Amino acid sequence: MAGEGPRTAAAVVIGDEILSGKVAEANLGPLIAVLREEGVRLQRVAIIPDEVDAIAAEVAHCAARHDAVITSGGIGPTHDDLTVPGVARAFAVEVVRDERLESLIRTWWQDRLTDAALRLADVPAGSRLLAADDALLPLVAMRNVYLMPGVPHLFRRKLETLRRELGGGRPPAVQTMTIAAEETAIAAVLSAVAAAFPQVKIGSYPRKRCRVWVTVEGTDAGAVAEASEELARQLGGRVTTA
Amino acid sequence: MAGEGPRTAAAVVIGDEILSGKVAEANLGPLIAVLREEGVRLQRVAIIPDEVDAIAAEVAHCAARHDAVITSGGIGPTHDDLTVPGVARAFAVEVVRDERLESLIRTWWQDRLTDAALRLADVPAGSRLLAADDALLPLVAMRNVYLMPGVPHLFRRKLETLRRELGGGRPPAVQTMTIAAEETAIAAVLSAVAAAFPQVKIGSYPRKRCRVWVTVEGTDAGAVAEASEELARQLGGRVTTA
Repeated sequence: MAGEGPRTAAAVVIGDEILSGKVAEANLGPLIAVLREEGVRLQRVAIIPDEVDAIAAEVAHCAARHDAVITSGGIGPTHDDLTVPGVARAFAVEVVRDERLESLIRTWWQDRLTDAALRLADVPAGSRLLAADDALLPLVAMRNVYLMPGVPHLFRRKLETLRRELGGGRPPAVQTMTIAAEETAIAAVLSAVAAAFPQVKIGSYPRKRCRVWVTVEGTDAGAVAEASEELARQLGGRVTTA
Repeated sequence: MAGEGPRTAAAVVIGDEILSGKVAEANLGPLIAVLREEGVRLQRVAIIPDEVDAIAAEVAHCAARHDAVITSGGIGPTHDDLTVPGVARAFAVEVVRDERLESLIRTWWQDRLTDAALRLADVPAGSRLLAADDALLPLVAMRNVYLMPGVPHLFRRKLETLRRELGGGRPPAVQTMTIAAEETAIAAVLSAVAAAFPQVKIGSYPRKRCRVWVTVEGTDAGAVAEASEELARQLGGRVTTA
């Protein structure tokens, strides 16, 4: 999937600890930044529990609708790490022990080897390994699903492998402006310009003290510039910062 | 839904600006804290685009499976605010103008009134209004779906209304410990204790420098204490902090 790369992605965060508030989610921010830089549009995020059925259902849903699915979490050696069986079930394949991973683990763990460590060699049948340049285990990919670690510092190190795999697209063009007005007072102008430029997305976000932050975004930089100019023209003196 | 309150919830965050990385998600943290304090288990989070079909599908999915669904975002006056038609479609009802909301808006906006401001009075048919004590408009609830604003300072102000509506349960009991070990070395003990105490959830989260943070959680405080003691007994001297 090099070259143009996938155009859309979904992220599936697997972790009771996030949903229960014991740990703050920390991987989406860095993931979103990389996807954006590489021109991949993130269209959906789901945060779900450590349960095989929930993982299988969400991954199957996303894999059928997006070019790439990035999972975060649930790939460690303990009983609550269920992403591998969940992804296997999503594609109706078995969980198998990968010989290359097993060999790496035996070499790495040496006399500290446990059955739990060997569980790290289990993958959905048909997975491929994406070589890492970070001295960690390779990233496992099952068709268009990438199984990233949940631990934030490991997640960030694997992001460069993911970038190589998914990269190559161009980020969208974006222009922003701040308007000194109530949102209700400028809504009609925003709607009219949005309708006139269907190839761009116009976002409107109220801020405190009667300010609205407006974003104009799209893959066609010319259309983004034109729509921004039209907004600025119609909103005139109320544009406070570009 | 006072008293015991709902036991499970899902959150649906509606916003292109989050998915595209233009704005960092800021409402889940405060929401998760309130739900936890009130004994409501958050079981799913979805972050989806400003699209009526996506909103309708996700809200319908969640409303059928959870006691409460909290949406965040998409309820303002502009063209990209599509949560009301999305929730209406989820329940196959029309969007209607609520007379009480319209009256409040006319009183509040006075000579600044626009058609866009009046859009704030549109709700899914059959919705109820939850009185606010924050001088903002009431919180709209459609069956078990609560339509919260996306702007973080407004979201936080509405959280107390939501707490009154959903509250009354008890937070789960939780005990935590840090273990000086590789996760692969203690995985077998964690699995055995988890199997022996099916009424508690044991979570295992590797930290740097060969430490594992272990959490034991459940509604039965006695079982949580027993499982924690059993873990401490079996892991012996490797428990560094309770």
